[in-house]
Amino acid sequence: MPEQFVIGVDLGGTKILTALANREGRVLAEQKIPTEAAKGQQHVIAQIVQSVEHVRKKAGVQTEQVPVLALGSPGPLDTRTGVIRFAPNLAWHDLPIRQALERQLSIPVLLDNDANLAALGEHVYGAGRGEDNMVYITVSTGIGGGLIFGGRLYHGFTDGAGEIGHMTVSPDGPLCGCGNRGCLEALASGTAIARDARELATRGRGAQILAAAGGDVAGITAVTVAAAAAAGDDTAQSIICRAARYLGIGIANIINLLNPSLVVLGGGVMNIGEPVWQNLRTEVRARTLEEAGKSVRLAAAELGGRAGVMGAIALALRHTGGMK
Amino acid sequence: MPEQFVIGVDLGGTKILTALANREGRVLAEQKIPTEAAKGQQHVIAQIVQSVEHVRKKAGVQTEQVPVLALGSPGPLDTRTGVIRFAPNLAWHDLPIRQALERQLSIPVLLDNDANLAALGEHVYGAGRGEDNMVYITVSTGIGGGLIFGGRLYHGFTDGAGEIGHMTVSPDGPLCGCGNRGCLEALASGTAIARDARELATRGRGAQILAAAGGDVAGITAVTVAAAAAAGDDTAQSIICRAARYLGIGIANIINLLNPSLVVLGGGVMNIGEPVWQNLRTEVRARTLEEAGKSVRLAAAELGGRAGVMGAIALALRHTGGMK
Repeated sequence: MPEQFVIGVDLGGTKILTALANREGRVLAEQKIPTEAAKGQQHVIAQIVQSVEHVRKKAGVQTEQVPVLALGSPGPLDTRTGVIRFAPNLAWHDLPIRQALERQLSIPVLLDNDANLAALGEHVYGAGRGEDNMVYITVSTGIGGGLIFGGRLYHGFTDGAGEIGHMTVSPDGPLCGCGNRGCLEALASGTAIARDARELATRGRGAQILAAAGGDVAGITAVTVAAAAAAGDDTAQSIICRAARYLGIGIANIINLLNPSLVVLGGGVMNIGEPVWQNLRTEVRARTLEEAGKSVRLAAAELGGRAGVMGAIALALRHTGGMK
Repeated sequence: MPEQFVIGVDLGGTKILTALANREGRVLAEQKIPTEAAKGQQHVIAQIVQSVEHVRKKAGVQTEQVPVLALGSPGPLDTRTGVIRFAPNLAWHDLPIRQALERQLSIPVLLDNDANLAALGEHVYGAGRGEDNMVYITVSTGIGGGLIFGGRLYHGFTDGAGEIGHMTVSPDGPLCGCGNRGCLEALASGTAIARDARELATRGRGAQILAAAGGDVAGITAVTVAAAAAAGDDTAQSIICRAARYLGIGIANIINLLNPSLVVLGGGVMNIGEPVWQNLRTEVRARTLEEAGKSVRLAAAELGGRAGVMGAIALALRHTGGMK
């Protein structure tokens, strides 16, 4: 039998990352292209197909040598039927993407949530190696996550587990995109940090935040707030401190409920560095029960933007029995 | 080979419930005795031994016919070593209870957390039959719980999973017994309801609460508050509404994180009935994501005070391969 390979695809609102790996999980070919969502879902599906064909040919591999492909996608989706129920960033509803890809590629397709696959990627290849009970959290424009129990992804009843960003941490807090008030995502995401900074800048506070954004309130992002905080701006520092503390509350809640051995934290907001980690740790220490708090480790994600595609590869390899 | 049986013991701060069952889980003998904690841990261990011997003899069963006994106990404990790390209600520290019982009974002993076993009891014999992903919550003087994933108890890294009562639902809320502020237990337990009512009664509010407690502020409990609420007292009703809403927030958080098919709710506070269930459901509806919120069922526990001992029987039977 000729050597076998797997392909992983991480479909995001802004980019499609595709990689082909051997049975040891070593990536032999990879491609990253911008998601042209505005051109419609058929076009994006064609982009995925082209990208898969591109890495396959680049690696000199025949279709018959790829027993399975795994795709990570945003949104509520159904892993059993391979249907994306809703992808807000792509404005898709009830798209049978597995069926579409299988027809065009002649390769069996596995579908899973992007945050789940990022969790699996960190578990198998990144910060979570060897940890059986692990929680992965990504803090970026939104807040998402994935749960690994007993070394396996936990999906929940309808593939909806891991919605860490929509746990309420302040019952009367700001309105979240989901319609609820005081979700973690509405208090600690990059979007929340930028929103708070814009509100204060409009009221004449945080001069350095505005300066970092080139004087334009609309140009304020979590990155400009972080820059202003690093430059010593009090307002910027307190915005980041507050977000990090809410993050710590959310993480402490998960630790008390699930008693994981490890919480892996990734995403742009974590890259702000010490001000976030320090305040988050203070809150986690204060709010966890003794045993669970003492035994858990918090660690930075190691795979960055490649976590999702590496998770897709891990899922595909597990499916073929290529690795544990 | 003669017929085999298992024994389950539920050790609580106020009572010890012991039952012997056949391999179908049918209870053939049962005993309930008060826990004489004040007489010391050796005395309580002797009580357990006597109770086990009592049900065994009552059922006409030989020691050799009991391949395993399962014990549910409060507190942080270690299921692998069989050591109770700390049982606050019993003032025990680092008690190797499995070793002590095995020596005196000559029956292998399994140890698990009382709330975990109550969850397993409801899963196997009660409201959670046939549900693979289930969360059990007991709302009584404290708030505890257990998690069933894939039909199995989930223990976490150090047997600490399921501490639902210590998830923060109001960051600046009242002080909890654990030292943290705004824990669910500090806002929605029977103890929290009684505390709120006493505070208000001291300030001259809630006349019917005081009346229901025989005019004695110290006599106010969650039960007297519920009675006053049922009699139409506004203050009592708003105390219960508030507690139920916090309960709903905590449950919504768990649903968003774990996407279970079922949440089973037991304990004295749930017996207050509609005012609790209705407010709780309102909050759960408002704060859960669409798919997870639509697909989850909330149900009343069915086994009452017998959930723990039935869970112990289920654990023992699973251990012997007696049932799935």
